[in-house]
Amino acid sequence: MKKRIVIKLSGRIFSVDNIKILKDYAKFLVKISKICQPVVVTGGGNIARHYINHARSSGADESSLDELGIEVSRLNAKLLIYALKHKAYPHPPTTLQEIRYAVDSGLIVIVGGLHPGHSTNGTAALIAEKVEATQFLNATDVDGVYDLDPNKYKKAKKFRRIELKTLRNMLLREDSVAGGYDLMDILALKIIERSKIKTRILKADLKILEKAIKGDSVGTEIIF
Amino acid sequence: MKKRIVIKLSGRIFSVDNIKILKDYAKFLVKISKICQPVVVTGGGNIARHYINHARSSGADESSLDELGIEVSRLNAKLLIYALKHKAYPHPPTTLQEIRYAVDSGLIVIVGGLHPGHSTNGTAALIAEKVEATQFLNATDVDGVYDLDPNKYKKAKKFRRIELKTLRNMLLREDSVAGGYDLMDILALKIIERSKIKTRILKADLKILEKAIKGDSVGTEIIF
Amino acid sequence: MKKRIVIKLSGRIFSVDNIKILKDYAKFLVKISKICQPVVVTGGGNIARHYINHARSSGADESSLDELGIEVSRLNAKLLIYALKHKAYPHPPTTLQEIRYAVDSGLIVIVGGLHPGHSTNGTAALIAEKVEATQFLNATDVDGVYDLDPNKYKKAKKFRRIELKTLRNMLLREDSVAGGYDLMDILALKIIERSKIKTRILKADLKILEKAIKGDSVGTEIIF
Amino acid sequence: MKKRIVIKLSGRIFSVDNIKILKDYAKFLVKISKICQPVVVTGGGNIARHYINHARSSGADESSLDELGIEVSRLNAKLLIYALKHKAYPHPPTTLQEIRYAVDSGLIVIVGGLHPGHSTNGTAALIAEKVEATQFLNATDVDGVYDLDPNKYKKAKKFRRIELKTLRNMLLREDSVAGGYDLMDILALKIIERSKIKTRILKADLKILEKAIKGDSVGTEIIF
Amino acid sequence: MKKRIVIKLSGRIFSVDNIKILKDYAKFLVKISKICQPVVVTGGGNIARHYINHARSSGADESSLDELGIEVSRLNAKLLIYALKHKAYPHPPTTLQEIRYAVDSGLIVIVGGLHPGHSTNGTAALIAEKVEATQFLNATDVDGVYDLDPNKYKKAKKFRRIELKTLRNMLLREDSVAGGYDLMDILALKIIERSKIKTRILKADLKILEKAIKGDSVGTEIIF
Amino acid sequence: MKKRIVIKLSGRIFSVDNIKILKDYAKFLVKISKICQPVVVTGGGNIARHYINHARSSGADESSLDELGIEVSRLNAKLLIYALKHKAYPHPPTTLQEIRYAVDSGLIVIVGGLHPGHSTNGTAALIAEKVEATQFLNATDVDGVYDLDPNKYKKAKKFRRIELKTLRNMLLREDSVAGGYDLMDILALKIIERSKIKTRILKADLKILEKAIKGDSVGTEIIF
Repeated sequence: MKKRIVIKLSGRIFSVDNIKILKDYAKFLVKISKICQPVVVTGGGNIARHYINHARSSGADESSLDELGIEVSRLNAKLLIYALKHKAYPHPPTTLQEIRYAVDSGLIVIVGGLHPGHSTNGTAALIAEKVEATQFLNATDVDGVYDLDPNKYKKAKKFRRIELKTLRNMLLREDSVAGGYDLMDILALKIIERSKIKTRILKADLKILEKAIKGDSVGTEIIF
Repeated sequence: MKKRIVIKLSGRIFSVDNIKILKDYAKFLVKISKICQPVVVTGGGNIARHYINHARSSGADESSLDELGIEVSRLNAKLLIYALKHKAYPHPPTTLQEIRYAVDSGLIVIVGGLHPGHSTNGTAALIAEKVEATQFLNATDVDGVYDLDPNKYKKAKKFRRIELKTLRNMLLREDSVAGGYDLMDILALKIIERSKIKTRILKADLKILEKAIKGDSVGTEIIF
Repeated sequence: MKKRIVIKLSGRIFSVDNIKILKDYAKFLVKISKICQPVVVTGGGNIARHYINHARSSGADESSLDELGIEVSRLNAKLLIYALKHKAYPHPPTTLQEIRYAVDSGLIVIVGGLHPGHSTNGTAALIAEKVEATQFLNATDVDGVYDLDPNKYKKAKKFRRIELKTLRNMLLREDSVAGGYDLMDILALKIIERSKIKTRILKADLKILEKAIKGDSVGTEIIF
Repeated sequence: MKKRIVIKLSGRIFSVDNIKILKDYAKFLVKISKICQPVVVTGGGNIARHYINHARSSGADESSLDELGIEVSRLNAKLLIYALKHKAYPHPPTTLQEIRYAVDSGLIVIVGGLHPGHSTNGTAALIAEKVEATQFLNATDVDGVYDLDPNKYKKAKKFRRIELKTLRNMLLREDSVAGGYDLMDILALKIIERSKIKTRILKADLKILEKAIKGDSVGTEIIF
Repeated sequence: MKKRIVIKLSGRIFSVDNIKILKDYAKFLVKISKICQPVVVTGGGNIARHYINHARSSGADESSLDELGIEVSRLNAKLLIYALKHKAYPHPPTTLQEIRYAVDSGLIVIVGGLHPGHSTNGTAALIAEKVEATQFLNATDVDGVYDLDPNKYKKAKKFRRIELKTLRNMLLREDSVAGGYDLMDILALKIIERSKIKTRILKADLKILEKAIKGDSVGTEIIF
Repeated sequence: MKKRIVIKLSGRIFSVDNIKILKDYAKFLVKISKICQPVVVTGGGNIARHYINHARSSGADESSLDELGIEVSRLNAKLLIYALKHKAYPHPPTTLQEIRYAVDSGLIVIVGGLHPGHSTNGTAALIAEKVEATQFLNATDVDGVYDLDPNKYKKAKKFRRIELKTLRNMLLREDSVAGGYDLMDILALKIIERSKIKTRILKADLKILEKAIKGDSVGTEIIF
């Protein structure tokens, strides 16, 4: 059995018209599937936000908004599945039990969201736990975790490694200042902690992802 | 029991950022629900086309493309449901049997697509048949059926009434010229014919829709 | 992977008491499964008509009648599955997605109807499209397409090949005369056209079916 | 809440072409629904036997045969539902839980079989227990329980009342002689016994059924 | 294909805190899976009784009580599945159709109850029939069938073989005396009889079970 | 429409043999249902722990353990439903969408867990958000939030009100000391915060619960 790697992909790459990006991701996944079994968790991106904004302005409740995001993330997952053709499990699983079944097929598995109340990060961590992934790669817009906001402070320094507890405190502190933290990452951290999942936060860039899969130290590693 | 009216709404109004349109449609539906029970069938619009184009360029088969369109049309249906709040059946039914159940609630029912291989028009006709609608309003971009393409020919003349057979022949002829006809309207016509459903093709404009519901002769009526 | 052939079988063979017919069909399917993977779509036959007539006389709506026909066609499919024993996928799939999954098993797949509003022909065409069949064999009571009704006119001539557009016009014209055409074949033609499915209309006779599978020119071929 | 009465109807009335029988049953059920809530359990009849015989001759296992019978009994149930129009719960429930839900609607409920391994009698008894029926009427071909086979022995005497234990012993003895008893009636008796359900075996005749519902002593009553 | 053996296991072993028992059963099943494919049907045990007693004292109906027992038996089945790790089908099937699918995987299959109205014994017999088991081992608290209650009568004699009809009469007679028999075993006997399933009643002891699987004459065999 | 109150009940009360406790809770819920609509979320208690411990010792993954807990919590929910008879929605909803549907019935709704990765507290908060509860009562073993562990420190002081942020910091600090905090309460706090749900932590005692529902200041209130 190949080792399994869970990659969380932002929904951003699915809402652009440039179809080449998806094809590049598909090629990349096929390539790395020779050395591991990738399980990709897709986000909702701009289209999810379009639906969520409309529904929120109509007064829909938060879990209904979550459901809209999940449904769009599954449409995104399907685009990647079609691009992968017969190399991918043929549809996005919708429960943890089905994910287990899907990975047993040996194919590349593409999943969207699962349940209201879970961020894509939290879902990806639960999946990494369920499939006993050897690594969880959280591909984001920034290239790792910084001590200060790198967009604001030139002197911001990237961590190569960060203790899970330190990261959690940073997330909570940020919140108390700006209201902008996403507590669901707190859920993700909880899962990572309880099952000791090897996790790396890194830039959503195919070369950097490939390095990470080959064991290079890129982005920021979470340590316990 | 109030008489039921099936309205087919193009997906176009769901992909714009202007949230006011949806609210206006919601207000309109609440208003007319005092004199009838509206059953609205929503199309997929631009966002459906975005997904379909990506999937087609990856070589997905036609019924998978249909499924993507159906899923987006259901997300669109949800936006209208949220805008209607407690006046609407709380989610888009996914089978004819569930639609029957939904209309029995007395609420406004908003449905997206149902099955691969059916256009939104064909689906709306099947639904009109299932709920024994007194009228089927097909709200489109043009204000009725013309003898010539009104965008090309100034002298094009709008029919106030058209025989179903004449319309079918026009649809087929158009196809043989331009390749651009939508055969699923042939399916819709078949349903309309077998159950003698009172049908009107008219512009997707709230005032015109209201006139039609009140019995005014707007757009083009299909006669048998 | 073996090439896939979709065969549409009239429900007639399932309502007779003579059990030998089913066994002969089963043997035939096992035999040809050495050179292709058969996907058989079964009709409803007399028993479907029994239920439909009763329900119609009670005023049931058309899509409920369709559902009765679908359910009987699935019972028929089961009889063929039992006759095939372990050579067949163990139950009739009920969605296009499940059909895809079933054909991936490599077994012979027997399907009944799928959705209200689709004739058995339309369903068979959708399935041929979904499984990327190399051929769609429409086994009927007559041995091909004629220019005139062969039951009425001695001089009626069978086409060896017919253009899809010509066939469509014939179907529509027939209707305008006799009211007896089945528009759902229009749906089937649409699917055949959009996915360029190699289609042959031929007699439901095991020898003729076998010839068609081996590439002989029997019945009438639809060309584009 | 009206008292509930469970009536088990043989499948025989559904396989004849004479549509009047079904309409008479529908009228009868509407009539008695003024004084009670009828829950009808339909058998499979000749059509079920047709499918079962074919499948058995192909070597299908017993529980698959049971499933065929259940599916046909549900088609039969649908015919009665269509004949009852809006007076009936709109489809045959498929689980005991759904039956409970259906009776809560106050409508007439028509059910077919439920699970492999249960005869229609056993199912009807389970349903009578679930809906807390005040009476279970087992409508059959004979007009009650006799001490000897009334078809063979002129001197056979009908019981007006029979102890459940006596009936059970008769059923078992009959079996040991003729191989023709249906043990599932043993299951039905068990349910009747454990929940003390008031049960009457009587002829499937509308006048006799009506008498029984009104409290007259017709057929044979089972006592404890 | 390996021959299949159905083993009915009392729920007693799942409610004790001693985790070793489960591990021993798991080891045993892995060991015998080299010579056969075991299908295990688990009972509900003390925990089922806890829920059933509470619900009965609240006046819940009998089939709801059955459902509680089924749900607990499935939790028990899961414990055995986890102990077997990748050797077991990953969850307890819930229908006969899913059981057929599960055994086709070649894995050890662990099932709980299936439907209200069936005892664990009746369910196990139905499953043995469905999977064409070569043997059905009914593992119980006593080491076989006795002519008298071995707990009360020293001179009670164990049968090495017993005719099915004799056993049935004993079960019914016992009931008429003590009210303590479980008629569901009558259902089990019916299934065993109609499909001629080779059945043995024996002590739930790993050494004795192993002997039975290897063909030794232990416990009591049911003959026809 | 009555205001809705969500009460989270520890699973402890469901695993004891004393059936009176459940009956008292049922009476209490019926009583308060005159002034509000209670939605009760039940925990898993000792029996959940029994299954989780066995499964963990077999190496089951964390989300499977969560699932076992959820299933037991639903069995517990059923016991309360049976005790409430026709006053309760007839089964525990399993999705947020079904909960919305259930509360629309106007009945008392009893729910167990929903999804792996959520504590009972987090689930209860999500439900409170979904049903727009006016109050969320978290009934626990202690009578509120203390500045120090009241079991260890005599001088521990109970808060009558506590800021949500202060509580979050306490939960995190506790964790950093003892490893014993339940981060899922962090999830619950996030939901409470984003939807501004009026929340009270109080002792699981019927008199205290009743006071809270009537608006008395008992336990500890969370403020924003």
